[in-house]
Amino acid sequence: MKLKSTALSLAAAIGLSFSASAQTDSLMLRKIFDEALVNGQCYDNLRYLCKKIGPRLSGSAGAQKSVEWSKKLMEGYGFDKVYLQEVMVPHWVRGEKEQGFIVTGNIRTPVALAALGMSVGTPKTGITAEVIELQSLKELETLGEAKIKGKIVFFNRPFDERFVEAGGAYGTAGDQRNAGPGAASKYGAVAVIVRSLTSALDNYPHTGGTSYGTNKPIPAAALSTVAANKLSAMLKQKNAVPVKFFLRTNCETLPDVLSYNVIGEIKGTENTNKYITVGGHLDSWDLAEGAHDDGTGVMQSAEVLRIFKALGYRPKNNVRAVFFMNEENGHKGGIKYAEQALADKEEHIAAIETDEGGFTPRGFSFERATPVFLKGINQQWKQLFEPYEADRLTAGGGGTDIGPLRQTHPNIQLIGFRPDSQRYFDIHHTPNDVFENVNKRELELGAASIASLIYLIDQHGLSF
Amino acid sequence: MKLKSTALSLAAAIGLSFSASAQTDSLMLRKIFDEALVNGQCYDNLRYLCKKIGPRLSGSAGAQKSVEWSKKLMEGYGFDKVYLQEVMVPHWVRGEKEQGFIVTGNIRTPVALAALGMSVGTPKTGITAEVIELQSLKELETLGEAKIKGKIVFFNRPFDERFVEAGGAYGTAGDQRNAGPGAASKYGAVAVIVRSLTSALDNYPHTGGTSYGTNKPIPAAALSTVAANKLSAMLKQKNAVPVKFFLRTNCETLPDVLSYNVIGEIKGTENTNKYITVGGHLDSWDLAEGAHDDGTGVMQSAEVLRIFKALGYRPKNNVRAVFFMNEENGHKGGIKYAEQALADKEEHIAAIETDEGGFTPRGFSFERATPVFLKGINQQWKQLFEPYEADRLTAGGGGTDIGPLRQTHPNIQLIGFRPDSQRYFDIHHTPNDVFENVNKRELELGAASIASLIYLIDQHGLSF
Repeated sequence: MKLKSTALSLAAAIGLSFSASAQTDSLMLRKIFDEALVNGQCYDNLRYLCKKIGPRLSGSAGAQKSVEWSKKLMEGYGFDKVYLQEVMVPHWVRGEKEQGFIVTGNIRTPVALAALGMSVGTPKTGITAEVIELQSLKELETLGEAKIKGKIVFFNRPFDERFVEAGGAYGTAGDQRNAGPGAASKYGAVAVIVRSLTSALDNYPHTGGTSYGTNKPIPAAALSTVAANKLSAMLKQKNAVPVKFFLRTNCETLPDVLSYNVIGEIKGTENTNKYITVGGHLDSWDLAEGAHDDGTGVMQSAEVLRIFKALGYRPKNNVRAVFFMNEENGHKGGIKYAEQALADKEEHIAAIETDEGGFTPRGFSFERATPVFLKGINQQWKQLFEPYEADRLTAGGGGTDIGPLRQTHPNIQLIGFRPDSQRYFDIHHTPNDVFENVNKRELELGAASIASLIYLIDQHGLSF
Repeated sequence: MKLKSTALSLAAAIGLSFSASAQTDSLMLRKIFDEALVNGQCYDNLRYLCKKIGPRLSGSAGAQKSVEWSKKLMEGYGFDKVYLQEVMVPHWVRGEKEQGFIVTGNIRTPVALAALGMSVGTPKTGITAEVIELQSLKELETLGEAKIKGKIVFFNRPFDERFVEAGGAYGTAGDQRNAGPGAASKYGAVAVIVRSLTSALDNYPHTGGTSYGTNKPIPAAALSTVAANKLSAMLKQKNAVPVKFFLRTNCETLPDVLSYNVIGEIKGTENTNKYITVGGHLDSWDLAEGAHDDGTGVMQSAEVLRIFKALGYRPKNNVRAVFFMNEENGHKGGIKYAEQALADKEEHIAAIETDEGGFTPRGFSFERATPVFLKGINQQWKQLFEPYEADRLTAGGGGTDIGPLRQTHPNIQLIGFRPDSQRYFDIHHTPNDVFENVNKRELELGAASIASLIYLIDQHGLSF
């Protein structure tokens, strides 16, 4: 294998042209990747965030500590401007560790479970009730209040393994956790337990946010997939006594807390009111170090600006790294960022979100992807990313934190950084989302890919 | 994300045509992937190989056990023909665990090291000598016998992190391990210690084969990267006493042993003397379970045939899964397979090797890749692999085990399965190459990618 960029071989083979400007770009991308791979700092920064600060759910002491450290980190890099953006965030706390048992007569079998974020707790004495297993929210309607009332609803639809991108399976199974508790409440359920949103068969419960809408809140928790399979198997047996479930959760929602987005900026040399944003979220679930979700994203975002400084690259447009607060249970940081950008009459060209883990990069997805746009960007830029194996430029979502910019800045292009998706949901929202599961080079290649895309947008815009 | 294959979006966007035959192929690939992802068995098979059999270096009891089990596995699948192919293999044994110390005056600092495969052992009392650190084999020449004689040569050139594919760094650093001991012996060195071939900074020594050529064998061992950094730092200090090193290794090479390639076959319906081979190697280093190297490869190879059977696909050509013996320290299985194929006057269309780990698939590399071939295969097949993110079809190597077919069958296309390369050398040839580091879906996606390519070759050949 050759060391120097050989971006052109396939391009030449399939007859695409490669201009002088593309040659310049190709050399710049090689410099960006070399800087990330040889002098990269995002991995060491991530170690600090995970090991010295750790869990940082909105409103927690960990979140505040991470805000202060992040600001210092970016100040230390000497970015042109580093500041905190105030945002009020929800303050949900898990309280004492949950308990769950499958109850058959006098036998109580303990299972691994974790309360869902923003869920209400049970009474101190817990809740015991018969269990009804459902595969979908639609079944609630079919069965009606007669069959649901007074019971614990158990949503147990597994991931559809046929999805190649694991995010597809997460997306289609996700309603059980996101909306299941609220929907079951409407039919008189006393609590909801949900199969963890993962392909992995292990004993980690995967937490995650739920929202009751206008329905009465009822306790809600995730079961590990091993526990879900066990419960399902027991429900399928014809027992003399009905299978019940006991859960006690101790979570509650306290008053909102003042927190912050942390923002670092390199000033543009030409377009002083135009912005390109790159960001991830600083908050994490309370159970984990939040390594892949989303320590990797914020550390990559800061690394993009560090790389530009290290290479002496002065962008034409302002480039901002934003560490959003509260992605996990409220999205308040993303909402605030967009509102402020509108209030300040900033012009936003593009925003890139990195919140799918720090895995080996595959490419980017673009929200406003007309066929003409897709054709243009693939003809002109795909070949630049090919040597770095990050050349999948497709239609698709941007991300939760940059989403609010869609309304405030209708001309913006929202872009999702897309790393390989296979391992993410094995550890997502579990105590296993730790620094040790991040690969240094994968993280660095991701940072370099994002820096490369921002460089290209800064130089050429996004009109294809 | 949509579930159904949408292979055509980018193809359409960049103006490629998609024929009726491609539509049929696209549907078949979807079936192959669904079968692998929903009913896949390679992950459970790999668990058995790693956990119930474990290390299986050529000549060992583990190797023999793995041969017998592999044959039963493929017989159980009901392939048309399952048989053992005899091959004589080297029988190197590590013996009692090695010892290594950095010695400064009376202080002995223990370090993690492992004898290199095929190396000779030290005397029972070990070897103690002054250390000379080199970055390359070329330096031996520059320094000459005067500076080398009687010393332990320490090759410490690290991986070049600028390579995007980690195999490139392995390739360029590899001469230190492969040829370093033989070369240093020529200048009178008494032993060689080599920095482990990895980017990872940890305390695992990475073993691997060495070859002395015609030089006198001297003891040779790999140091963990942590140990190598420590030794290098101590050598850089100006000490009152010289830094010495002590090593004792207990390895030896016993007489050759009869072993086997394990071969499973589905008969072709049309071309009864034409073959497509898919294979990996069944042997592994003694230190590890040989999960990614190369349990994943052999289990994927069997899975390809299982998928064809499960889908009722009868290939036109014979398709063979070959579990090669002795890739790690002699390549005798690969040599034997080619010789036998020649002796039997078999016509071989293509051989695909999977020996770069069971990581998320990226694509395939082709040895006989003229510009016309590359253009053709990318125009016609790339779009079929795109929905599965395994669409990098490039020029490059096939693999060690299928390499001997290059001489015996000059018209064959040799193909390397290319999974993502970032994590492989973190665990390669260490005790950390275990089942737990394999991801089920990544493994299955790889098997499906290979099955897809074989299906396409079987249907359409490789003339572009």
